Amino acid sequence: MDPSAYDLVVIGSGPAGQKAAIAASKLGKSVAVIDRKEMVGGVCLHTGTIPSKTLREAILYLTGFRERTFYGRDYAVSKDITVADLAFRVQKVLGKEVEIVRAQLNRNHIATLAGTARFEDEHTLAIESVDGTTRVRGEHILIGCGTRPAHSPAVPLDGKRIFDSDQLLLGDALPRDLIVVGAGVIGLEYASMVTALNIKVTVIEQRPTILDFVDREMIESLMYFMRQRGAAFRLGERVARVAYDEKNRVVAYLESGKEVHGDALLYTVGRQTNADLLHLEAAHLAADERGRIAVNEFFQTAVPHIYAAGDVIGFPALASTSMEQGRLASCHMFGAYCQSRPEAIPYGIYTIPEISIVGKSEHELTEAKVPYEIGVSKFEELAKGQMLGVDTGMLKLLFDRRTRKLLGVHIFGERATEIIHIGQAVLAFGGTIDYFRDAVFNYPTMAEAYKVAGLDGLNRL
Amino acid sequence: MDPSAYDLVVIGSGPAGQKAAIAASKLGKSVAVIDRKEMVGGVCLHTGTIPSKTLREAILYLTGFRERTFYGRDYAVSKDITVADLAFRVQKVLGKEVEIVRAQLNRNHIATLAGTARFEDEHTLAIESVDGTTRVRGEHILIGCGTRPAHSPAVPLDGKRIFDSDQLLLGDALPRDLIVVGAGVIGLEYASMVTALNIKVTVIEQRPTILDFVDREMIESLMYFMRQRGAAFRLGERVARVAYDEKNRVVAYLESGKEVHGDALLYTVGRQTNADLLHLEAAHLAADERGRIAVNEFFQTAVPHIYAAGDVIGFPALASTSMEQGRLASCHMFGAYCQSRPEAIPYGIYTIPEISIVGKSEHELTEAKVPYEIGVSKFEELAKGQMLGVDTGMLKLLFDRRTRKLLGVHIFGERATEIIHIGQAVLAFGGTIDYFRDAVFNYPTMAEAYKVAGLDGLNRL
Repeated sequence: MDPSAYDLVVIGSGPAGQKAAIAASKLGKSVAVIDRKEMVGGVCLHTGTIPSKTLREAILYLTGFRERTFYGRDYAVSKDITVADLAFRVQKVLGKEVEIVRAQLNRNHIATLAGTARFEDEHTLAIESVDGTTRVRGEHILIGCGTRPAHSPAVPLDGKRIFDSDQLLLGDALPRDLIVVGAGVIGLEYASMVTALNIKVTVIEQRPTILDFVDREMIESLMYFMRQRGAAFRLGERVARVAYDEKNRVVAYLESGKEVHGDALLYTVGRQTNADLLHLEAAHLAADERGRIAVNEFFQTAVPHIYAAGDVIGFPALASTSMEQGRLASCHMFGAYCQSRPEAIPYGIYTIPEISIVGKSEHELTEAKVPYEIGVSKFEELAKGQMLGVDTGMLKLLFDRRTRKLLGVHIFGERATEIIHIGQAVLAFGGTIDYFRDAVFNYPTMAEAYKVAGLDGLNRL
Repeated sequence: MDPSAYDLVVIGSGPAGQKAAIAASKLGKSVAVIDRKEMVGGVCLHTGTIPSKTLREAILYLTGFRERTFYGRDYAVSKDITVADLAFRVQKVLGKEVEIVRAQLNRNHIATLAGTARFEDEHTLAIESVDGTTRVRGEHILIGCGTRPAHSPAVPLDGKRIFDSDQLLLGDALPRDLIVVGAGVIGLEYASMVTALNIKVTVIEQRPTILDFVDREMIESLMYFMRQRGAAFRLGERVARVAYDEKNRVVAYLESGKEVHGDALLYTVGRQTNADLLHLEAAHLAADERGRIAVNEFFQTAVPHIYAAGDVIGFPALASTSMEQGRLASCHMFGAYCQSRPEAIPYGIYTIPEISIVGKSEHELTEAKVPYEIGVSKFEELAKGQMLGVDTGMLKLLFDRRTRKLLGVHIFGERATEIIHIGQAVLAFGGTIDYFRDAVFNYPTMAEAYKVAGLDGLNRL
């Protein structure tokens, strides 16, 4: 074998690339992963999931957020929280995670090639780095090149007070008020974090509603609690341009003629993929207008030996689903058996409070004319909720009135992303609402919400 | 119907009594619950589960316990934590919980009778209160009278510096060092909490090992981490007597001749039931030497229409299992169908870090000659673990090498009592280790430990 030829060459070392590489390696294949030296772990690790979720935990802690129920609204552990306080924790976790990713790739004998990749033909990639250009051949190739924040000529990012989500930790002082343009998952996660810091936030979104794939009741609760903490929403409004005003504050001019002023502005309207850097045409591939690459159910592109996974293929663009896609792609390319449970894939949204869902929504069930019933539990009524100082949150079970089968679980509140996996397992095994009545739950836990919701649902029959 | 006759009379309004009463009421039965006025909710609420778990959350927060990984070992939010700080939170949660229990009983049209109950015959109970004696007749009776700390003539409790677990919050200052006699669940929960407050603890236990029903690896980890925080264990040692020494410190004289000195002593060697107050002989019932009442698998005593549930019947004496027992007892007495999954009952131990288990242990499987394999995940290697500042913890899956069926889940560490319920569901549905490979887990979560442990287990095959 030519030393620079591999069974699989992976472009990008983010969650999709990592799991694809490891799965192939476990199948005995030779694997190389290409990424820029400073980007091992991908956007997930450097500017995406890991920093934002670490920031979230730091803010929850440093602000004494959960303690406010006990000690009053103005309670805070650390009165003057600085960007440095927050950045310190992010650096610590990030450093550890880079180590873990490197160790995992090494342990699985995966070659890591530093540089920027581009296609030369359907099997050959050129890798550009400070040391020059090298070439590598892949029997199979997986594109997991990820995304970067989309920019707009109307928004003059300067990385100081007008910034995108990659630049968030670069400022030197926290703003007193913040404008967030774009209420997708990323925009809402940051907006809700920032309200926990007692920073006033105005969220501007061009669509009339937010997070359409999430239960409306949960979204309304989220908006209510964000407003309680000083957030304002301007939905159905488009930003015409952004500038500094005469007082050197940032101003967003809306198409409707309104103006929104703030200390700083975070622009999170969509992301574009890095596929434009890959010379896709050399491999006879193309991307859509936002750089997304089309794949079939096996994550194969139009060129059968080239696969794509992760953010580059679009929704849901979560680390968890990207990992799964990478693994499934590798299994398919090497003919390995691989079970997947698409009906039981959870979604986690790390707003404050967090949201997690699995299975069908009320909207989907109504459309499909499935006569469902609901079972609900409120978090502030759980003993554990009180102990943790939780003042909001709910778990909603959806199940079939006739068969009693569980159809969906929707959770808004503390530990939602953890406990969703209980409902996910019941859903995956085709369990009924009765499971929650019959199972014993540790007391006190947030998981007990399933018991309460199960009994509530059974009472409605 | 005579106004003082009910289909079911429940003695005790703790978890077992509450759930028995509610289950019977939902079946259309008339129900009364007897308890002392100040004890609605039972020991669980007043001196047991609720206060101790609230205290635990308060200590974890006020000490900045989880933040020490980031900010160093001596980090603490509140430098001078007082008994009042801790008691404040307990009172707040307790008050709310009493309300909830009362509301739940009222909503289900359950009569609550204030006073102390005793049997007059197999169907009649006398209720003693400040207003005099009243009588009530139960077609069925459920004994859920609970327990109180056992005392010893060798330990002169004064509620100040020599106290039992009921008296814990009565002192006016936190001790600098504490002696804990008895390393059962209660003793270890308090001992580990107190080490989080940087109070030195010496745990004395007459048996050579602790918590024999828990995986040894987890117990060793718990002991290791408690020692790291300044705990010492004296196992296989019996306390001969307790007194104050010449410096007015508490001293425990051990039978081996050693002496252990401390500022205060917590005595948690066993609990005795309140059955001695019930005049059981009038109902032709008897209790064993520790006051426990024997029941069959349906929670029936020797007198078929009298049931017993909760702490009064002995192990495991957890709020969660007591609730289940109460519910099952009511279903059986009124001939209602009731499924139970005894093989999938979880146990939660709220030490710091916490422990939770479901299914078989390695020891049980070895004894039964089941060729099991393990899959392990370490919490400090999970992204979420790092974000939360977790420096220890593990999840261990046990599964059958031949069938790959999940047999047991053992968790030690952050959120163990929550995420055990994921494994519990897989176990209840007879799932295999493959489930964890195929399921998508939100990232980052502690639940992801299942994925990592599942893959580790599969690698061992």
